[in-house]
Amino acid sequence: MVNAGIVGVTGFAGEQILEILLRHPQVRISILCSHRDKAQPIADFLPRFKKRLELVCYPLDAQAIANKADLFFLALPHTVSMDVVPVLIRNKRRVIDLSADYRLRDTRVYEKFYSHPHRDKIGLSLAVYGLPELNREKIKNAQLVANPGCYPTCAILALAPILSCCLDSFCLDTIIIDAKSGVTGAGRKVVEELLFTQVNEDFKAYKVNTHQHMPEIDQELSKIAGKRIKTTFVPHLLPLNRGILETIYLKKDPAKRLKVESLHKLYKNFYKTEPFVRIRPEGEFPRLRDVVGTNFCDLGIYEQKDLVIIIGAIDNLLKGASGQAVQNMNIMCGFTEEMGLR
Amino acid sequence: MVNAGIVGVTGFAGEQILEILLRHPQVRISILCSHRDKAQPIADFLPRFKKRLELVCYPLDAQAIANKADLFFLALPHTVSMDVVPVLIRNKRRVIDLSADYRLRDTRVYEKFYSHPHRDKIGLSLAVYGLPELNREKIKNAQLVANPGCYPTCAILALAPILSCCLDSFCLDTIIIDAKSGVTGAGRKVVEELLFTQVNEDFKAYKVNTHQHMPEIDQELSKIAGKRIKTTFVPHLLPLNRGILETIYLKKDPAKRLKVESLHKLYKNFYKTEPFVRIRPEGEFPRLRDVVGTNFCDLGIYEQKDLVIIIGAIDNLLKGASGQAVQNMNIMCGFTEEMGLR
Amino acid sequence: MVNAGIVGVTGFAGEQILEILLRHPQVRISILCSHRDKAQPIADFLPRFKKRLELVCYPLDAQAIANKADLFFLALPHTVSMDVVPVLIRNKRRVIDLSADYRLRDTRVYEKFYSHPHRDKIGLSLAVYGLPELNREKIKNAQLVANPGCYPTCAILALAPILSCCLDSFCLDTIIIDAKSGVTGAGRKVVEELLFTQVNEDFKAYKVNTHQHMPEIDQELSKIAGKRIKTTFVPHLLPLNRGILETIYLKKDPAKRLKVESLHKLYKNFYKTEPFVRIRPEGEFPRLRDVVGTNFCDLGIYEQKDLVIIIGAIDNLLKGASGQAVQNMNIMCGFTEEMGLR
Amino acid sequence: MVNAGIVGVTGFAGEQILEILLRHPQVRISILCSHRDKAQPIADFLPRFKKRLELVCYPLDAQAIANKADLFFLALPHTVSMDVVPVLIRNKRRVIDLSADYRLRDTRVYEKFYSHPHRDKIGLSLAVYGLPELNREKIKNAQLVANPGCYPTCAILALAPILSCCLDSFCLDTIIIDAKSGVTGAGRKVVEELLFTQVNEDFKAYKVNTHQHMPEIDQELSKIAGKRIKTTFVPHLLPLNRGILETIYLKKDPAKRLKVESLHKLYKNFYKTEPFVRIRPEGEFPRLRDVVGTNFCDLGIYEQKDLVIIIGAIDNLLKGASGQAVQNMNIMCGFTEEMGLR
Repeated sequence: MVNAGIVGVTGFAGEQILEILLRHPQVRISILCSHRDKAQPIADFLPRFKKRLELVCYPLDAQAIANKADLFFLALPHTVSMDVVPVLIRNKRRVIDLSADYRLRDTRVYEKFYSHPHRDKIGLSLAVYGLPELNREKIKNAQLVANPGCYPTCAILALAPILSCCLDSFCLDTIIIDAKSGVTGAGRKVVEELLFTQVNEDFKAYKVNTHQHMPEIDQELSKIAGKRIKTTFVPHLLPLNRGILETIYLKKDPAKRLKVESLHKLYKNFYKTEPFVRIRPEGEFPRLRDVVGTNFCDLGIYEQKDLVIIIGAIDNLLKGASGQAVQNMNIMCGFTEEMGLR
Repeated sequence: MVNAGIVGVTGFAGEQILEILLRHPQVRISILCSHRDKAQPIADFLPRFKKRLELVCYPLDAQAIANKADLFFLALPHTVSMDVVPVLIRNKRRVIDLSADYRLRDTRVYEKFYSHPHRDKIGLSLAVYGLPELNREKIKNAQLVANPGCYPTCAILALAPILSCCLDSFCLDTIIIDAKSGVTGAGRKVVEELLFTQVNEDFKAYKVNTHQHMPEIDQELSKIAGKRIKTTFVPHLLPLNRGILETIYLKKDPAKRLKVESLHKLYKNFYKTEPFVRIRPEGEFPRLRDVVGTNFCDLGIYEQKDLVIIIGAIDNLLKGASGQAVQNMNIMCGFTEEMGLR
Repeated sequence: MVNAGIVGVTGFAGEQILEILLRHPQVRISILCSHRDKAQPIADFLPRFKKRLELVCYPLDAQAIANKADLFFLALPHTVSMDVVPVLIRNKRRVIDLSADYRLRDTRVYEKFYSHPHRDKIGLSLAVYGLPELNREKIKNAQLVANPGCYPTCAILALAPILSCCLDSFCLDTIIIDAKSGVTGAGRKVVEELLFTQVNEDFKAYKVNTHQHMPEIDQELSKIAGKRIKTTFVPHLLPLNRGILETIYLKKDPAKRLKVESLHKLYKNFYKTEPFVRIRPEGEFPRLRDVVGTNFCDLGIYEQKDLVIIIGAIDNLLKGASGQAVQNMNIMCGFTEEMGLR
Repeated sequence: MVNAGIVGVTGFAGEQILEILLRHPQVRISILCSHRDKAQPIADFLPRFKKRLELVCYPLDAQAIANKADLFFLALPHTVSMDVVPVLIRNKRRVIDLSADYRLRDTRVYEKFYSHPHRDKIGLSLAVYGLPELNREKIKNAQLVANPGCYPTCAILALAPILSCCLDSFCLDTIIIDAKSGVTGAGRKVVEELLFTQVNEDFKAYKVNTHQHMPEIDQELSKIAGKRIKTTFVPHLLPLNRGILETIYLKKDPAKRLKVESLHKLYKNFYKTEPFVRIRPEGEFPRLRDVVGTNFCDLGIYEQKDLVIIIGAIDNLLKGASGQAVQNMNIMCGFTEEMGLR
């Protein structure tokens, strides 16, 4: 049993963590905070929770809450997290941070893509990148987990088998990630471009090859490959609430033979024991409706003589954020990894 | 040929007037204005119009533009119009105002529902309520037309035949208007409740029996009936861009016989010569897809022993706003009423 | 612990029951059936369930499955259920039937609205109408539960307090139910009118005052009122997946004083101990997003001198079908009523 | 003035041609046909057209209609067109065929991708590929125009400048077209996968690198390039009604210098005089809402050291089908190319 706190519970990711923890048999929710000015029952902010829980949501005061839970989920905007994390860490709490503040190892890259100086290099040195499929052992004992971004989760899971097992057979300068995300990916920001009338019946690319998740993808892929990887990344906005689908294109190196019998078998094998990665049968591909509402990442593989296409799909609020955060908590606390997530 | 100006061209209604006038064979668009700070090609604000027209959009200065057109469409927020109208009227221009500022005869009602004092009682005394099907003759020579609200247009057209021809057979204290509107009805306001993630896959009632269009409906229905009519009006927000559908319930007076053979025939006959009202065959009812993109109001009638249901549908931006405004212009200028609207 | 079977698991309601039972701590899913020709892993039909359960889905053969479970959920089309129920009943199984086959007491009404003769009058005599808030005691020992329709669930819960406690103060000949439903309400039928291009950006009324749920509503309301109630019922199709919202209008009898201090208090009190009915604060009204994904029915009350408006909202697949079915099972088996539904 | 016939008027493309021709000042619609069994007013099938036109829609009989118009639009399913075209051609009529039957020069390719033998090689030898921006001169005098597919229109316009002017600087074995289309692209087929509940809130790839538009794209690009081009083409289904957006990736040949100063300038220049192609300013990219409802193709260009991204957007029913068909008619008849399309 763990006492867990959710900081930033009124955003999409925080609300989703709350939904999951309510069903988790080993969690007692001991504190809820948000940026609201005064303490109020959480159901006042989120009427969905009326008659479901009686908890009060408090204004955020890191020092005051530090002793209210053993483990904290921080679902705060980027740059806000790094003011809260040091306080909790000093108080010996374990933290799963869903912001980008502890994901990028190089603070210059952080500062370039988030337009903000980094103020917590000590925290950064403690942080473990919380992608269980690749970092399970480190997550177990981590004090601070940097929960991955939604686009990176899908891209890294889609590319890890190739980069781990047969990167020599590919032209690594041509990894193209054409990504499409539902609107909850942008959070609850009240801006014109997220109005219903601006998004409904529309579709567009945005931040073409300049999105802040691109360096995160490149950093983690480079770690797997053992050499510098630079992808091309174009995100698009889908007129729907939840889900990310990425269509990823790689070129085989024409001079090399592929070392594995079939990529499909490689992927099946690579993720054989993973509870939350599913490989679609040959000739079939993921779709959002199969993953939305679940913590799964579905992958489909198309292989041609000179080209490979990997299609991945996740629910951006679950495997791409809150579900993965709870998966990390389960690992940190020694619970079954699927607990509360099935 | 008329020189027309559009003031407030960057809102939904203004943009829609521009779309229509571009195809209108008797109109020269002579001036465009908006609330933006500086003069710029309109296609900078509305990229849809690139390569279609070269016009510049100017900041709004009523005095400066007064001599730039013969007739002005004002697509401005409520309370802004009444600062502009007096200047244009003094300069002998004709004006079609799409705001609510000149629709309500009683300024106390206006002040109650729009929370703002009324500053132009002279203008109000000149204004003609611009519903062509009922006020065509007055519109012809009007200097100032108050273009009806979207909900009222649909409700009044749906109820006018009964209130004109057989109101004695109905319980006039029970007229229930259950209205549903797409999101463009709320304009381009950047507020949380109009975000995609708040509207998509949701549906709700709002301003239950307190909506500002209710007194407008009651005022016009009372005028038709020759006695005070007080409706019940509940609007709902649909997760779609365009269209209003109203389901209207009336009770027959059990003590009276209906004077007409069939309400369906009454409606067919009442609107026989109207270019923009269509009566659905018996047993069939309007749907949004048949009216969206057109200036039509479709009506369906269901009649029972004790109850009558009238269902009406319009495109809120066309018959409910800009299409009707152009229809009014056609009448004012002596053009064919359908010109530019088919 | 109960062994439960789901018959018709590949339809929307059956799939939803499966989702719920997977999380239910007191249920072992012992048999799955559908109309498919051959036995196959359920995840072949519903890829969402890959890596989540290994069960096989069998072709439907009532006799062959009768001993495979203690309690059966039948999520079959109308008229198919009544061939399966008698077999299961003869084998002493308990049955929760989600079709309309056992809801209407009068087989002539059934035959009129479902265009089909009724073939199981014995079953009908056993059936208990499974609305827990009104029939909890009878459900406890029922062998056959007729799970209510989606529209009726919302309408009956919205009207029960008034009909139970102060029907004399209302004109009972004027109960108008303006209902709006998402598309899953129509099931997985492959017909033109349910194509994406026919429903998206559209809205319409259908089966105006002739819908097959209307006699079910009238039957149950009459039972509560102790006198014949005849409502007006107009359903509409919303361009969204899940949810029903009903806006219900009642007239007070002008000659009578309302016996209760406030309807809002009456409703609060009437449903005080109910786990799945929530009353919105005064001046607030339900919206779909608060109930979708939950088993709640949310109600809002608007009271005027002469008129009352009740707005109710449910998830049509949960409280309107599968959630309510599991709630009924919990009652029948003596489990906590919320088990698996929070 | 031309007498035009529309064959297949009740499909999406035929209905859209009708909408356009109603506003076209130089067209008299002289005959409408569809696959329906008997002659009936077109407004019976398409209620949108009530009170707008009185025309009757006849069952399709090629011989009987051949003398009813000078020019025919055929909006028929693939393989049906090639039974009708020979009859009209023998009768010296001009034909714009919107099916795929006359687009592919190589009948073996047609037979492979459309699973059907080709029965009209004479017609094929007459057919001109109707992409005005590339084939304007041939279209002028064509008797039979094969109107391009929707995906190919967007892809070819997006790639023509590079393939025409600087193909040597690119790796032509790596042209990746990641395409996304709204649901009207699939026509009015009544199949489960096009149901609202299957498409709404979903997104998926389909026919990965096997879509029947891929050989059409390759054929036309090869013609432009003067050498065999083989693209990678992955279409996806968007949960919206209208619009295609394609994100196209090309690799520069690292050994070559780009011959042009900037690709953006190349594109601006290449399409300078085209009425229906617009180049977005540098750093900006197309979105569906700017092209839906118009005949424009919008293009955006992103250029990096080693990679180029071209994003194109069209309305699949206008520039991708019916709008382009009317554009072709305007060219064939010597009308202004924009007539009826602005």
